[in-house]
Amino acid sequence: MAEEVKLLGLGGSPFSCRVEIALKLKGIPYEMIPEDLANKSPLLVEHNPVHKKVPVLLHNGKPICESVVILEYIEETWKGIPLLPEDPYERAMARFWAKFIDDKCVGVIWKAYLSEGEEQEKGMEEVLELLKTLESQLEGKKFFGGDDIGLVDIVADINALWLGVLLEVAGVDMLNDEKLPLLCKWIDEFNKCSAVKETLPPRQMVLTFFKAQQSATGPTYK
Amino acid sequence: MAEEVKLLGLGGSPFSCRVEIALKLKGIPYEMIPEDLANKSPLLVEHNPVHKKVPVLLHNGKPICESVVILEYIEETWKGIPLLPEDPYERAMARFWAKFIDDKCVGVIWKAYLSEGEEQEKGMEEVLELLKTLESQLEGKKFFGGDDIGLVDIVADINALWLGVLLEVAGVDMLNDEKLPLLCKWIDEFNKCSAVKETLPPRQMVLTFFKAQQSATGPTYK
Repeated sequence: MAEEVKLLGLGGSPFSCRVEIALKLKGIPYEMIPEDLANKSPLLVEHNPVHKKVPVLLHNGKPICESVVILEYIEETWKGIPLLPEDPYERAMARFWAKFIDDKCVGVIWKAYLSEGEEQEKGMEEVLELLKTLESQLEGKKFFGGDDIGLVDIVADINALWLGVLLEVAGVDMLNDEKLPLLCKWIDEFNKCSAVKETLPPRQMVLTFFKAQQSATGPTYK
Repeated sequence: MAEEVKLLGLGGSPFSCRVEIALKLKGIPYEMIPEDLANKSPLLVEHNPVHKKVPVLLHNGKPICESVVILEYIEETWKGIPLLPEDPYERAMARFWAKFIDDKCVGVIWKAYLSEGEEQEKGMEEVLELLKTLESQLEGKKFFGGDDIGLVDIVADINALWLGVLLEVAGVDMLNDEKLPLLCKWIDEFNKCSAVKETLPPRQMVLTFFKAQQSATGPTYK
């Protein structure tokens, strides 16, 4: 049977981009079906009835939801560049840091971004602490995955583009060589990869979006 | 090298119990090192510096944190009863529902439990909806894993004991055959398994704890 790989996604969503980067790294051709989150398609509601969110991977018609679950599925389904190391302990470490990004960093960054004044100042201090903890995993390495991009790098795509945009809109100077040198170096290296370059939306587009949405109260996609 | 498996845990924590159930199902001998969360041990802080929470599995001295990450590690490290199916799609489904329990159910249950009056009523309606969605996965099956306990069942241990206790303390009648028949049947089946029976704390103990802590403002362990 010919493989049919479709992605219900959104070019501007870091969660959706994760799946695209992984598929490109593995060399899997896919059809992107862009979703309009203001007017969700019956296809999205049918295939992700629990969360009604992108990304949803449709592999031969079968839906898989939640970006990290999809990444594990891609890793287990297709050979090619591995997204996870072979050693179970190293795999556990990768899963731990992927979870750290999603469960800790994303929420704290978003909350700090949406707050104001003193509350934002405090929130941004917390963001810096979390990012310092995260970048400690880059010591002596090019990527979180070592010499090559792996699961943690892909999950961290949010730091390669959206983080900088949110900080710029909030007027916070944090992503610099003094405060987060290893993360800044990682952003450069990550953005050089062709699978990433081909996938992430133009910075100016994301910046325009968030400037327009500055008063929004929460993320609408994941 | 002789295997050394230690668990920094807490008998009363559903997250810690998950790891114990998995180790018992796999037949792995381990030493439980009980933690006092009011006075965290240097061992816990050393081995889980990021979250400082139980459970932490120490396998030949190497720490693994976060209960679901530990479950995947156990699955990949030791043979014996499988915790995940072989098929990548079925594995993705298991990971999706495990994530649903942790990311959606746990927080919503806890929030509803801690609220009062009309807010609690609304919160409990949401809890019921989530649990109905979850129990739909039990249709025609004994366990979430099929005929045998699997990863989702283990992650759902929270529903087998703590959920009922919280609902009792809150004075909410929800875990009954009319509202959640499949989940009630699952609780019976799950609690019959020897690995579960040997692990979960006595209901009365958990009930006494939560009655005493009724005014607490948030969970202190995970």
